[in-house]
Amino acid sequence: MATIDLNADLGEGFGAWRAGDDRAMLAIVTSANVACGLHAGDPDIMAETFRIAREKGVAVGAHPGFADLQGFGRRRIPLSAGEIERLVAYQIGAAAALAAYAGHRLTYFKAHGALANMAAEDRSIADAVSRGARAADPSLVQLAIAASEQMKAAEAAGLRAVGEIFADRGYDARGQLVSRGLPGAMIEDADEAAGHVLRMVEEGAIVTGDGTRVAASFGSVCVHGDGPHALKVAARVRARLEEAGVPLAAFAP
Amino acid sequence: MATIDLNADLGEGFGAWRAGDDRAMLAIVTSANVACGLHAGDPDIMAETFRIAREKGVAVGAHPGFADLQGFGRRRIPLSAGEIERLVAYQIGAAAALAAYAGHRLTYFKAHGALANMAAEDRSIADAVSRGARAADPSLVQLAIAASEQMKAAEAAGLRAVGEIFADRGYDARGQLVSRGLPGAMIEDADEAAGHVLRMVEEGAIVTGDGTRVAASFGSVCVHGDGPHALKVAARVRARLEEAGVPLAAFAP
Amino acid sequence: MATIDLNADLGEGFGAWRAGDDRAMLAIVTSANVACGLHAGDPDIMAETFRIAREKGVAVGAHPGFADLQGFGRRRIPLSAGEIERLVAYQIGAAAALAAYAGHRLTYFKAHGALANMAAEDRSIADAVSRGARAADPSLVQLAIAASEQMKAAEAAGLRAVGEIFADRGYDARGQLVSRGLPGAMIEDADEAAGHVLRMVEEGAIVTGDGTRVAASFGSVCVHGDGPHALKVAARVRARLEEAGVPLAAFAP
Amino acid sequence: MATIDLNADLGEGFGAWRAGDDRAMLAIVTSANVACGLHAGDPDIMAETFRIAREKGVAVGAHPGFADLQGFGRRRIPLSAGEIERLVAYQIGAAAALAAYAGHRLTYFKAHGALANMAAEDRSIADAVSRGARAADPSLVQLAIAASEQMKAAEAAGLRAVGEIFADRGYDARGQLVSRGLPGAMIEDADEAAGHVLRMVEEGAIVTGDGTRVAASFGSVCVHGDGPHALKVAARVRARLEEAGVPLAAFAP
Repeated sequence: MATIDLNADLGEGFGAWRAGDDRAMLAIVTSANVACGLHAGDPDIMAETFRIAREKGVAVGAHPGFADLQGFGRRRIPLSAGEIERLVAYQIGAAAALAAYAGHRLTYFKAHGALANMAAEDRSIADAVSRGARAADPSLVQLAIAASEQMKAAEAAGLRAVGEIFADRGYDARGQLVSRGLPGAMIEDADEAAGHVLRMVEEGAIVTGDGTRVAASFGSVCVHGDGPHALKVAARVRARLEEAGVPLAAFAP
Repeated sequence: MATIDLNADLGEGFGAWRAGDDRAMLAIVTSANVACGLHAGDPDIMAETFRIAREKGVAVGAHPGFADLQGFGRRRIPLSAGEIERLVAYQIGAAAALAAYAGHRLTYFKAHGALANMAAEDRSIADAVSRGARAADPSLVQLAIAASEQMKAAEAAGLRAVGEIFADRGYDARGQLVSRGLPGAMIEDADEAAGHVLRMVEEGAIVTGDGTRVAASFGSVCVHGDGPHALKVAARVRARLEEAGVPLAAFAP
Repeated sequence: MATIDLNADLGEGFGAWRAGDDRAMLAIVTSANVACGLHAGDPDIMAETFRIAREKGVAVGAHPGFADLQGFGRRRIPLSAGEIERLVAYQIGAAAALAAYAGHRLTYFKAHGALANMAAEDRSIADAVSRGARAADPSLVQLAIAASEQMKAAEAAGLRAVGEIFADRGYDARGQLVSRGLPGAMIEDADEAAGHVLRMVEEGAIVTGDGTRVAASFGSVCVHGDGPHALKVAARVRARLEEAGVPLAAFAP
Repeated sequence: MATIDLNADLGEGFGAWRAGDDRAMLAIVTSANVACGLHAGDPDIMAETFRIAREKGVAVGAHPGFADLQGFGRRRIPLSAGEIERLVAYQIGAAAALAAYAGHRLTYFKAHGALANMAAEDRSIADAVSRGARAADPSLVQLAIAASEQMKAAEAAGLRAVGEIFADRGYDARGQLVSRGLPGAMIEDADEAAGHVLRMVEEGAIVTGDGTRVAASFGSVCVHGDGPHALKVAARVRARLEEAGVPLAAFAP
């Protein structure tokens, strides 16, 4: 049976501010997407997150986003493809150095926030993200939103791509995430989220709100790193997968 | 006869702002210290500087400084040794990725501005700089201020160190740079600067204002990358060394 | 005969970087739009610009833009109307305080870059800009792009509005600026720009590329504050207006 | 009987990050020191804090600090006196505009973090802070650390000064705060802090660790706005003062 990975966005503080309980999350997930200093994270938080991840045997990836601290990388900033390539390469390089500093090793990357959403929808942006990452380190795996343009771009760039599904998000009939704000976008209940994940993992497919299966390749489940219910949902997802005998392991250890 | 290197701080713009004529300077120097985005430089300017340097066969190094755009890295910001290590590692990693993106390769680093001055005087800060760089990439050479604490720290960290002297600065009896603002700190005249450099290179020693020789190891001459006279001084220094038959070459090609 | 104002964006440096020759421009224009620290400008540059403007009898306005130093306020950042109101109020308040510090007084404001372009096209954004300014100081005049949504919004917010035309830009048949990149967008030649301005001022109307008159209310001409030809164009526009006997004066002294 | 004010640093989030429970603190304090966007706070958080303060009848002041988001304004950045004047004026102006936007009115200011500490010790820095504020608005009251250089500078600048004592900090024999890290610097227990405050208020003097009275003028008590015990200590201090019949009121309503 294939293993499944559990990933979360971590190290999302900045200076004196913190975004979630990273240490507790690092006891649950198998992969940590670490913010790279431009939308969140600073060198100290990055190194500390890499250090704890190493201690706990959690794989680490760079989590590059727009250079927008105030917007937490969630605002769509109009950049050219070349600007995106360089923005991504910059952040991956910085993260790789701090992972090494902390005695760990970066094995993958995943785009953050608005950059991820734009790259999920727009192939030219997805290509820019993957090319920027490849330039920084061609051995990195790309953790990509399942059934999105990110998957195609990763493969076109010659990167190994692993798809991810989301524990607390609903999917539409095309296997795309229901936009935040629309009905069925969020799954708030921990048990419901865990059940949804297990169903998708067992089916090997995205399952939409009305129970339809949409074929998609994925190897990881994204749980939230912050917010009031983050730990509870993440723990519940992990427990449910373990109870079902699904082996949990990082896709890029 | 030993070769001598000519280095300058380049890529010191940010966004729409520019600091000097990088293209012209890259036709003169043999090594370019490239700002890493926190006191100057952004991913686009960094990549462009690396690209032109590659075209012209100029070696490139990371030039990390304090995260202080408004102060251009010239203000002394009180950080712990650990914070400095991580600040340096972050910037070197980012620069390495963008050098790779531009088809070039980072072979050295040099601390910038206030960080460099603090590291020249204070061994614990110098150690932090060298350790941070070593964590990012132990194969990098450190371009260090000759006869300063930086040289000792680089060696203690196991890095190859190359000393640099300054074309337009005066030296005191201990071989230290005369502080800006004091008489004899600056050598404004291009011919005088070029003559001073040639004398030091031929003597293999620092030469002070009154002509005293102070033993010091160095392999590079720093010329300014911006300011009204930068190009003229740099060109004059290069010409004078060539006329004297001193072979010019990057110390870390 | 009505007076005409000559305005330019000034104080657009940041830290050690400079964008144009502010002192020379302040000898030509009658109103200075001063950047407020978020896309350009810092407290020191702002105060210095206000100080020189006071010495030269030039009126001063706040020039708020997006909080985007790297993009120089030229990238369209998706903000809510409320966020724009507060962004504008913040910058106007900061500029008012520094004008007072320099012994001058802020009498108007003008939106910058992408924020100005968005407010020229989109009434809801224009309303947000005008409301934010009004909250900061209801006595300010709004310098608004002639024949744009900015004019309507200023009036709706109860602000006095003064329209501006551009010396070096072409206009389309609706009296709108031809988008940069399209043919006829830019008027590069100083004499041609000056002639174009004089024609519009004498006609009291926008004049399009093919000579058509489009009715529009304006009281100011915008000349560029930076770029290689800024001083030449500004001086030529001023000279041509003076030769024609058009009295030059700030609209909000 | 004289009234006493209770002040706290609020609005110390940035973008998506929050520092404390501002709404709860605004139900306890009589004056809110609002961060101005450079070490914490952004225009949205500032306006929201001013709005809630207005609703709850809490006086508001600007809380300017160094432009250092990563350091939260707690790192000593070497600026000239003029740079400090302009940094303070900028932030006070911005805060005044956003207070007006929120229907409130700024009546005082208080320096933050490292800037406050430097101004408490060094008269030239204290003078710069007071002069910058006075230039922005000469009607503002300065909330100054009791028995510090800040008090003298405020008076020399012609500002009304109100001294503050700290609920959770110990004092030395000269009436100065014991430096953090030294024994007796912090009073962790809420009851002990409340008792210490009541003693000082009743005595009208600073009371040191060994019970000595040091004459000092003050009209406000500073409680922390964030941290795990902030609400508990603030509520306990308020309750203890109310039980003792000390009337609580803003010093600059």
